[in-house]
Amino acid sequence: MVIKILPLKLPSKELIRRLSVKDLAKIIDHTILKPNVTLDDVFKVCEETLNYGFAVAMIPPLYVKDALKKYPECKIATIIGFPLGYQSLKIKLKEAEEALNNGASEIDMVMNISMFKTGNKEYVLNEISEIVDLAKSVGNIIVKVIIETGYLSDNEIIEASKIVKEAGADYVKSCTGFGPRGVTLHDVYLMYNAVEGKIGVKAAGGIRHAEDTLALISAGASRIGTSSGVRIIEEYKKLRFKYGFLD
Amino acid sequence: MVIKILPLKLPSKELIRRLSVKDLAKIIDHTILKPNVTLDDVFKVCEETLNYGFAVAMIPPLYVKDALKKYPECKIATIIGFPLGYQSLKIKLKEAEEALNNGASEIDMVMNISMFKTGNKEYVLNEISEIVDLAKSVGNIIVKVIIETGYLSDNEIIEASKIVKEAGADYVKSCTGFGPRGVTLHDVYLMYNAVEGKIGVKAAGGIRHAEDTLALISAGASRIGTSSGVRIIEEYKKLRFKYGFLD
Repeated sequence: MVIKILPLKLPSKELIRRLSVKDLAKIIDHTILKPNVTLDDVFKVCEETLNYGFAVAMIPPLYVKDALKKYPECKIATIIGFPLGYQSLKIKLKEAEEALNNGASEIDMVMNISMFKTGNKEYVLNEISEIVDLAKSVGNIIVKVIIETGYLSDNEIIEASKIVKEAGADYVKSCTGFGPRGVTLHDVYLMYNAVEGKIGVKAAGGIRHAEDTLALISAGASRIGTSSGVRIIEEYKKLRFKYGFLD
Repeated sequence: MVIKILPLKLPSKELIRRLSVKDLAKIIDHTILKPNVTLDDVFKVCEETLNYGFAVAMIPPLYVKDALKKYPECKIATIIGFPLGYQSLKIKLKEAEEALNNGASEIDMVMNISMFKTGNKEYVLNEISEIVDLAKSVGNIIVKVIIETGYLSDNEIIEASKIVKEAGADYVKSCTGFGPRGVTLHDVYLMYNAVEGKIGVKAAGGIRHAEDTLALISAGASRIGTSSGVRIIEEYKKLRFKYGFLD
């Protein structure tokens, strides 16, 4: 006997109806973090961020100042302890300080995965807390913490997410894009349930298309990190048109 | 007509005769840089470094002090701006300062690939020079500079290698192990010729076996970075035995 499995119907028509193109753009971190990026590449990403209305332009730390000088109205995010996470707290604080001095509105830090695996959860919690405290002392700076799900078991994803919430960060984030794998729906379900929806969940790592983006949002993601933001928006426009939503 | 190509005969018997097992160990950087490494993993690498006589134990910055406390006779190396290279010079200098204060004997920094690609070669040269100056002001600290060959054309590999030499570093190094690909023989030939043998060439990234190690040495590598040091030495012992060298 052939067992029939219904198609999962992702993305749902209801989500597509409720989520305008502008709304989708607003939760995308338009990202360029490859080590071989040029300054022109960074400027292009800032320009697209403004044109499409993305949440932020996520760029390497070295270019935060230049980007804001050229695009003062563009929100800029950068990274801390990226992508391996095992720098000392002192260095991570210096990186955060520099990012904030340069005008970043949001910082995405990598959790100390190594200390987490060593079993020193106190260290991990304290490290995140210190960076959150620094960020919040400057103003309303958003802090996201990357736990790199590809290195973690399900239980570890849950535990790490709870630590991130306890430390006062704004988002728990799945992957760096430089780890062993990208984000999965399963990751997002685990993270979202672990933080009980009380902080945000940012899905990142390997997100290239509109359908995947919508599925991740359905699973609980409230922010999307991707270098394919422009393509995703263009695909989403067509998708909404196909479903009969014409705005 | 079938064209016969002679097998390349790598590794050569002559190299195997001249290179004792101890000599091979002496040029291997015994490396553990995965982000999910535990402190026990680090200690194991230090112990193996002493037992096998490897050049250094190459470990994350956070553990340099702990490693030296437990294994004071072990030479420790760590990394700067790793693996993406686009931190500010200020942060890289802080990382180097911390590594040297903690007792590291060697530091492997990542070149600012992004500035190199942007065309700001002056910046790249100056950055390396500043870190070399800091290291040499402390004592005989070895500085290696990773150019991440996987992002570079042949001409760029040659140009980057020359900059590394000009800046006064001790080694030009191929890859981080987190880039788009591992080291190739072609990389090593290019780097070795570019620096005219005047500084060392460290091959790293994806080196797992004795035959590859020997081929890279034949091509001009004077240091090998690998997390498979123990396996390579054990394989090399068998290889030497097979060739009739019994020591």
